[in-house]
Amino acid sequence: MDRLLSQFQFERVLSNDPRTKQIYVLGYVDNQHCILSFEKTPFEDNQVNTLAQTLVDIDQHVENHIYSWGIGQLPKSDLHIKSIYPATDLHIAKYEAQTRVMIVETPTDYERITLPYIKDIPLSRIQWVKNILEGKSEADRVIYQNKDPQTGFVILPDMKWDGSQENLYWVAIAQADILSLRSLTRDHLPLLKKIRQVSYELVKEKAQLEAHQVRLFVHYQPSYYHFHVHITAITFIDAPGIMSGQAHLLDTVIDNIEHYPQYYQLASIPFLIGENHPLTEKYKHRH
Amino acid sequence: MDRLLSQFQFERVLSNDPRTKQIYVLGYVDNQHCILSFEKTPFEDNQVNTLAQTLVDIDQHVENHIYSWGIGQLPKSDLHIKSIYPATDLHIAKYEAQTRVMIVETPTDYERITLPYIKDIPLSRIQWVKNILEGKSEADRVIYQNKDPQTGFVILPDMKWDGSQENLYWVAIAQADILSLRSLTRDHLPLLKKIRQVSYELVKEKAQLEAHQVRLFVHYQPSYYHFHVHITAITFIDAPGIMSGQAHLLDTVIDNIEHYPQYYQLASIPFLIGENHPLTEKYKHRH
Repeated sequence: MDRLLSQFQFERVLSNDPRTKQIYVLGYVDNQHCILSFEKTPFEDNQVNTLAQTLVDIDQHVENHIYSWGIGQLPKSDLHIKSIYPATDLHIAKYEAQTRVMIVETPTDYERITLPYIKDIPLSRIQWVKNILEGKSEADRVIYQNKDPQTGFVILPDMKWDGSQENLYWVAIAQADILSLRSLTRDHLPLLKKIRQVSYELVKEKAQLEAHQVRLFVHYQPSYYHFHVHITAITFIDAPGIMSGQAHLLDTVIDNIEHYPQYYQLASIPFLIGENHPLTEKYKHRH
Repeated sequence: MDRLLSQFQFERVLSNDPRTKQIYVLGYVDNQHCILSFEKTPFEDNQVNTLAQTLVDIDQHVENHIYSWGIGQLPKSDLHIKSIYPATDLHIAKYEAQTRVMIVETPTDYERITLPYIKDIPLSRIQWVKNILEGKSEADRVIYQNKDPQTGFVILPDMKWDGSQENLYWVAIAQADILSLRSLTRDHLPLLKKIRQVSYELVKEKAQLEAHQVRLFVHYQPSYYHFHVHITAITFIDAPGIMSGQAHLLDTVIDNIEHYPQYYQLASIPFLIGENHPLTEKYKHRH
């Protein structure tokens, strides 16, 4: 890494998040692309009680009633560094900032635009899901498995889980071939309720979390079209896709179908999506 | 501020957010409570192209295939500092970390627990809303006003808006006395649609934002029980309360009522709430 850092030729910033203080930068090392990420480190408990006295050069000072603010300097500061080298175009696209837009999908839009888009996705893209369901891969990571073709499902840790209770992140994947939220009807209530019940039992047993401390939700649009439910700790406030426009709470999904069996076939569903996503392109030519 | 920093006697950490790298610390200055906040600063464009070469002391280095990561040191680093002095117990409670829980409110729970709780809130707590609606305060900040008692509403910038297009944050407040999402029926469709239409027109006119670049949503539970709609830019990814369990998209609210006029009277609605919130206390004794 020392060599990558010292020989890095800056090209451009891919993304710079002022909220998390993390930046992704693209450059070259030996004529090959290299991505570097820098992220400021959180405050540590052992530095906190002397922090006020450690600061120097207070600047841009403003006071208003009991409030005041300014900028100070720490004599030195740690950064987390990550590198990808050599980096492909796919890596670059992944870390490039992408603006998102809100699209409202009517039932007609689903039939005419989204469903044909889903059917064009090669089945090989969900081969990894099939492998998990058939026990051919990640079998050692599976927390729960029930192979019933109608109400069966697998629960396993999400790839992005850091292993902590606070950031608990599991996923439940249905055995049955259900594309997405749009496909759910009264027929799926036993599956949905079983996922809810087993999830609550397992987070209590394995992570000492009560039902009211977890969020069970479904993404629409999902990142892959084989029905799955996300299971995260409420304390995981930065969990991916928990926002309105992405996450549909399992409790609400069940309640909607119980009241209105065709709810998800009749609803107009707003969803957030990257403005350069292939599906967004198709929606641009809707009218 | 120099005096506050040098005389600050550390008592305890109120909250420490590893995601945003911001910490709130409680202490004393001259026997009165003082709250200090420190937040690491975002990366700046003019430091980015030399950042890789500025780092020293690379440590905890790990490599795996094309990926590697570690920790480096910046020779100096800015911090944003804020202080509140003297700080009251209310200030302390505001910045203290609070765990949230998910509660599912059935229609019966609403009648038996939530509605009596709302009715016990002194009317004086929404006097500021009445003042805005009657033009007695913030009149110079109002962007739009229609005083029709059924379909009228006011649009004005939210107090927390920083003024940028990227973080646009407005609020639309109904003239009519509507408590919350729970109260909405077919009678309110003209109001809801008018809010949607006028919001889209105004964000285009005042902020050059298209309809698909804004998020219109309602909180449940709301922070005050007089019906209002939040208007934020999609790019404002850290907008307060946009998560599932808090935000209900206006498009979905309208669609639900159009299909099922009594949707919000019959639904079981999950909501996120602080575990020490007074309403949470009442729900603990539900069964």
